[in-house]
Amino acid sequence: MLLRDPVHGLISFSGATARLVTRLLDCAEVQRLRRIRALGLAALAFPGGEHSRFAHAVGAMHVMQRYLDRVRTLAQELPPHDRIDDDWAHVALAAALLHDLGHGPLSHTFEAVLPGAPRHEVWTSRILLDPDTQVHRVLAELDPTAPTLVERLIHGQGPIGHLARAVSGTFDVDRCDYLMRDSYMTGVRYGLLDVDWLLASLRLYVPEGSTSARLAVDGEKGLTAVEGFFLARLYMYRQVYLHKAARAAEMMIRALFRRLCELGPEPGTPPVLEDLLRGRDVHVHDYLRLDDHALAEALAAYGRSADPVLRDLADGLVGRRLFKTLRLGPQVDSAEAERRLAEVFAGEGVAPAYLGAIDRVEIDAYTDDEALMVLRGGGRVQRLLDASPLLRGLARERFVHHRAVFPPALRARVSTALADMT
Amino acid sequence: MLLRDPVHGLISFSGATARLVTRLLDCAEVQRLRRIRALGLAALAFPGGEHSRFAHAVGAMHVMQRYLDRVRTLAQELPPHDRIDDDWAHVALAAALLHDLGHGPLSHTFEAVLPGAPRHEVWTSRILLDPDTQVHRVLAELDPTAPTLVERLIHGQGPIGHLARAVSGTFDVDRCDYLMRDSYMTGVRYGLLDVDWLLASLRLYVPEGSTSARLAVDGEKGLTAVEGFFLARLYMYRQVYLHKAARAAEMMIRALFRRLCELGPEPGTPPVLEDLLRGRDVHVHDYLRLDDHALAEALAAYGRSADPVLRDLADGLVGRRLFKTLRLGPQVDSAEAERRLAEVFAGEGVAPAYLGAIDRVEIDAYTDDEALMVLRGGGRVQRLLDASPLLRGLARERFVHHRAVFPPALRARVSTALADMT
Amino acid sequence: MLLRDPVHGLISFSGATARLVTRLLDCAEVQRLRRIRALGLAALAFPGGEHSRFAHAVGAMHVMQRYLDRVRTLAQELPPHDRIDDDWAHVALAAALLHDLGHGPLSHTFEAVLPGAPRHEVWTSRILLDPDTQVHRVLAELDPTAPTLVERLIHGQGPIGHLARAVSGTFDVDRCDYLMRDSYMTGVRYGLLDVDWLLASLRLYVPEGSTSARLAVDGEKGLTAVEGFFLARLYMYRQVYLHKAARAAEMMIRALFRRLCELGPEPGTPPVLEDLLRGRDVHVHDYLRLDDHALAEALAAYGRSADPVLRDLADGLVGRRLFKTLRLGPQVDSAEAERRLAEVFAGEGVAPAYLGAIDRVEIDAYTDDEALMVLRGGGRVQRLLDASPLLRGLARERFVHHRAVFPPALRARVSTALADMT
Amino acid sequence: MLLRDPVHGLISFSGATARLVTRLLDCAEVQRLRRIRALGLAALAFPGGEHSRFAHAVGAMHVMQRYLDRVRTLAQELPPHDRIDDDWAHVALAAALLHDLGHGPLSHTFEAVLPGAPRHEVWTSRILLDPDTQVHRVLAELDPTAPTLVERLIHGQGPIGHLARAVSGTFDVDRCDYLMRDSYMTGVRYGLLDVDWLLASLRLYVPEGSTSARLAVDGEKGLTAVEGFFLARLYMYRQVYLHKAARAAEMMIRALFRRLCELGPEPGTPPVLEDLLRGRDVHVHDYLRLDDHALAEALAAYGRSADPVLRDLADGLVGRRLFKTLRLGPQVDSAEAERRLAEVFAGEGVAPAYLGAIDRVEIDAYTDDEALMVLRGGGRVQRLLDASPLLRGLARERFVHHRAVFPPALRARVSTALADMT
Repeated sequence: MLLRDPVHGLISFSGATARLVTRLLDCAEVQRLRRIRALGLAALAFPGGEHSRFAHAVGAMHVMQRYLDRVRTLAQELPPHDRIDDDWAHVALAAALLHDLGHGPLSHTFEAVLPGAPRHEVWTSRILLDPDTQVHRVLAELDPTAPTLVERLIHGQGPIGHLARAVSGTFDVDRCDYLMRDSYMTGVRYGLLDVDWLLASLRLYVPEGSTSARLAVDGEKGLTAVEGFFLARLYMYRQVYLHKAARAAEMMIRALFRRLCELGPEPGTPPVLEDLLRGRDVHVHDYLRLDDHALAEALAAYGRSADPVLRDLADGLVGRRLFKTLRLGPQVDSAEAERRLAEVFAGEGVAPAYLGAIDRVEIDAYTDDEALMVLRGGGRVQRLLDASPLLRGLARERFVHHRAVFPPALRARVSTALADMT
Repeated sequence: MLLRDPVHGLISFSGATARLVTRLLDCAEVQRLRRIRALGLAALAFPGGEHSRFAHAVGAMHVMQRYLDRVRTLAQELPPHDRIDDDWAHVALAAALLHDLGHGPLSHTFEAVLPGAPRHEVWTSRILLDPDTQVHRVLAELDPTAPTLVERLIHGQGPIGHLARAVSGTFDVDRCDYLMRDSYMTGVRYGLLDVDWLLASLRLYVPEGSTSARLAVDGEKGLTAVEGFFLARLYMYRQVYLHKAARAAEMMIRALFRRLCELGPEPGTPPVLEDLLRGRDVHVHDYLRLDDHALAEALAAYGRSADPVLRDLADGLVGRRLFKTLRLGPQVDSAEAERRLAEVFAGEGVAPAYLGAIDRVEIDAYTDDEALMVLRGGGRVQRLLDASPLLRGLARERFVHHRAVFPPALRARVSTALADMT
Repeated sequence: MLLRDPVHGLISFSGATARLVTRLLDCAEVQRLRRIRALGLAALAFPGGEHSRFAHAVGAMHVMQRYLDRVRTLAQELPPHDRIDDDWAHVALAAALLHDLGHGPLSHTFEAVLPGAPRHEVWTSRILLDPDTQVHRVLAELDPTAPTLVERLIHGQGPIGHLARAVSGTFDVDRCDYLMRDSYMTGVRYGLLDVDWLLASLRLYVPEGSTSARLAVDGEKGLTAVEGFFLARLYMYRQVYLHKAARAAEMMIRALFRRLCELGPEPGTPPVLEDLLRGRDVHVHDYLRLDDHALAEALAAYGRSADPVLRDLADGLVGRRLFKTLRLGPQVDSAEAERRLAEVFAGEGVAPAYLGAIDRVEIDAYTDDEALMVLRGGGRVQRLLDASPLLRGLARERFVHHRAVFPPALRARVSTALADMT
Repeated sequence: MLLRDPVHGLISFSGATARLVTRLLDCAEVQRLRRIRALGLAALAFPGGEHSRFAHAVGAMHVMQRYLDRVRTLAQELPPHDRIDDDWAHVALAAALLHDLGHGPLSHTFEAVLPGAPRHEVWTSRILLDPDTQVHRVLAELDPTAPTLVERLIHGQGPIGHLARAVSGTFDVDRCDYLMRDSYMTGVRYGLLDVDWLLASLRLYVPEGSTSARLAVDGEKGLTAVEGFFLARLYMYRQVYLHKAARAAEMMIRALFRRLCELGPEPGTPPVLEDLLRGRDVHVHDYLRLDDHALAEALAAYGRSADPVLRDLADGLVGRRLFKTLRLGPQVDSAEAERRLAEVFAGEGVAPAYLGAIDRVEIDAYTDDEALMVLRGGGRVQRLLDASPLLRGLARERFVHHRAVFPPALRARVSTALADMT
């Protein structure tokens, strides 16, 4: 089984693994990921960033395969219960492939704008554990416990600590793939993530007083690769994930959903979306009908709504006429900025909540959680922060994205009102 | 105006050009291209190939900008009426950006499966010439004749011959962008197209007895770049555009549309699609509502149809359970193969047209049309075929893709029936 | 053991293999390859093409390692005596690393301009078989027969046919590395060689009536990769290896050596070079002192020679003031062109042999030698020429490089004399 | 004039500029740069890092050309005397091409190991100002003041402040090229330097109270590009320029030169090197004879020296049998480590200076010198450190490379002696 991937080159599986992977790829719930863009609204700012969760899921599975290969060469350093046999390898590959099954339309955007609704991780669990889904059946045929093992692994749990961390940790196969892929596709060329070197310098060690192996990195060779991982993450947040157009569009879709709740049933809303908006229980089978296509068609319908607020928001999103942003200083008082923005919005005859807001996001470049230690000569173990002046320097700073978001027509008035805050 | 593009790097425009480009990009008809995948069904075979016509249109405009820059440095070699002033430059950039406006869902697939319907080029013209579209209005404000000039240029017509050829010819900005982009995105790494070198070795000359300049390539430096262009095209056809999974899926969607026609109105069909299926006139405004999202939602609805043939085809497409293919020898008699296939299909209780067919496509690697000549020392002009043994060699061969296409369940019986034809 | 390589990424070896590789890399004869540029005089035309034979040797060893990995996954398809055990793997890796040991200064140039002298393959054998060289000793410690086995393998001989072909055949690890490396380093971006895909589609089969496995390629997946290999080769010859500046420089150095022979001992000539020029026997140990540095220092000395012919040639090479070239038609009669060139040279007061010549080189894009067959479904085997219209087309054409080479001052007169031959 | 460059793609010049560039490239002093490796001894650690100063010089000239293009589009923002006319453009391109003329063998290594001798910048000046060099003559024909203007510009002086800074500043075309090139060639893939984006976000502004424009970067678009530049620099130092093998080799060559001084005239030493070793005056013409080839031939001769210390050091360098290193903690007292190392060395019967030393290098990731400010909306100017939390974080940390360097045979004893210092 051979797949061409622009990011990783060839992706291949053989033997029993190939058979399992093929069957999982054929599941409707996995194919659905083709219909959900990985970058959601950030594609509006980066013409190249139109790839789907499906491509990412396959890539994450490939990185997991390489992780397993690396762990195999380190088998002697591992206590027996931390080695990965073929069954666990299958569970791990499935977890990497299926970790994003629960995403709704536009990936993270959807859950961000539906605050009360279950998060995508919850839906992933439901899909895996529901005996009627195709992925459940394929996994259960492998082994009756497999659906549960995969589901737990996706949540970072399970008897093999380092494997759980590789599926869901500070430093996991999911992030490895999406940082590389999103960079490749958007053309944001800060390719700091050298996954070959990273894997080659990966080590496993058993801390004193423990019987379970943990991830580490070789202190001679691997430090720059690990730093590169965290730098790549920081850069992608600043350049892509928090791009002003993406944030503005998210604020618009959030306002649109709020308006939908207020208005009552609106033509064009799929029943399952209506249920989610009203906080009703939704069955897995219905949830899976939601994808980018369904949302796009709903937006197209809202562009013909009788309600002008809903119509304008939908039209703006469909035609990419987005809210504008004004950069605010990181130390500026957000509450005061919000107050002034509300004053500008006051005369517009529309509830301020539909016109914009102050958007403040802080990213930690690196937070030490000891998930990855540094192995020095002579078996000495060091914390990353002690080993890396670069991460130490980054950990001391906050990366603040602070902006006012508002309709284009109000740009002059907002700029005047917030002039001393930029 | 700055855009990041993964294929070309930075795309930038300034001054009046930037203002025009921004206004065109903001048009609803251009934004619609975000909702149409460039590779259509080939994305099913290449997880990375999910980019839209929008990204391609912007890229084509960028290559046109570079072509115009090159022509500017060659201005002395040109008769005055072949030089490009600012107005013509704007028309040319608009033509490159807008040349694909008329595409329906899944790009070329849509027109391929709706044989009677107008082709995308016709729709592009209608959209440009309809005074109610946004692109028409933006162009008409530039100059009342601009919509017509752009439309003619897209069809390879207009007073400046070399420019018309650069928009629509053997060797145009459209192909330059899509060959590079489709290769980058699918990961099919036969990057034979070196657009920098190609442009640097581009020349213009006025043939004896003519007053109008034509494209040529420098015989010392440019031959390999031109050959690379035709090789890249050949490779992309063989590897991507005619990939067996893409062809199988196209045959399924073709069967599905045929079934739709037979069945009469089917729940979930958008009115405009219904009209197109019935061969009725469709208004530009309605046509523009059709995009990948609309087709995907229709397919999802057909998956719940009462008609088993329609349901199976739709389900197969949505869930990527595609027809299988069997490679046939290039010399094999297609009619005889078709006959044998029909025999296998006969017992299935379903019309054979819904089960597959013989698929035969021939690609010419290079057909000499003198669109691009070779400039030798001393002003001597040579035909490409005379200058290039490589193209001469390719021109002598036919590249035939010959396959039987059929449902997976019939694989064994088809293989037996066609055993001597592979 | 980890090495960064710009072409292949990470190169790594472990265990006993790492120990052997490290010891071989430490040998003086291998380190000497750092002092011999792979592209020889072509570096004069491509500023980036300054890499050494050392980097190429390491790369070839890496490709061999990947070949061995691939053969391992195909082990079931192989008769026992064609499988590769650890000892043969070591021999194969050594052969790949050491295949170029015998190169003289400027790689191929050196033997090209010293027609009577032993070719580099002969020197490679002598170095490997001489019990006093470091590589001989390292290999002999591995196994007393190892030096001979390695030497035979480098010459395409040995009991395992497919391995011998992978070291030295139409399609070997040497070519795989140098085509990729020379392309990467010169920036000639016709990267048609997709070594990942090539290896993934490599197969082994045992022809009827034979007991020995031979190389093949999967007919579904591998054809384009194999074609890409031959296209890449063709392109590199035309663009780089036969670049006019490289050919002109080679003609100058050939003239310089001829002059050296005529003149008798000249200050600055290293004794070993003197011996080679006079056709005397040279000891391996002395031969190994010759490298690019030694030749460069000799050229620098010749720039101060009392003989004006020698001085001018040396100065021109050191300062890159090269002979010029005029392209001649492929059908032009070389003898007649030579005659006319001699006439132009006649009045110069210098023997024509020091002033230039007609240079004619023909490359076969593809010559069928059945070294690599195509495996079709059902175990059917096909010749490459039957399977590939592209190679068939190429095989029908000759690629002729035909040029007059002459001193810059004679450009006008040569152009006039050969005007009807261009 | 067209050149292929693997790093920048096509490099092209036209018209009068092409004529000047061609004449400069033909100068013997520029061609000499082909014989000096840019990375010096670091090539021993990175097989791909074998490129010369020549390739770098051409690349730096290309980046300067792009800088000049960018300045041209910003001309309106500039006071008249800060605009670049054609004459200044020629001076600037020459300065970028010629800035490294004075380098000795192995680039920086040479001056590092000859502490008393003039630095390469001094030699660059002498070469440019000496009326007998070819570059001087070509420049003087352009304009009698050109050699001086070029020489001053290379030293960061001249009437156009921003141009002087672009030739020689924190952030100059030299660094842009070498960071990109060294990364491409070594395969150390932390390509953080996006020169396209950097140039596109470059601005010029006139500070209050000044009449002269200074470099700035757009605060919205350019900050990440500038940070990337400094990160790339930091990474290349840590990974390549200060690689342990490069430092060990430099220490060996330093010891070798010290020994040469002690020994008196040694067979194989070129006269000019002898003069430099003895601190005698050396004529420009003689200095230019020194290059990598000359040094390599001298090292080969020293391998046959009667003095065992000299012989061992030379043999080790030629055959890449280098000193080993032991990493020491950044806070460890270097003097104490040096003392302990001396104790280990004491019993060896060779002066400790020939056996190794403690090597301590500190790199500042970023030192604020206001050479590049940040332009915010409304013409507000901000210091980089105030605008960039990332640079602020880096500026707070020291990057210390601290190692003991010693002969391989002493590894065990050194490790024991310094065990508590690692």
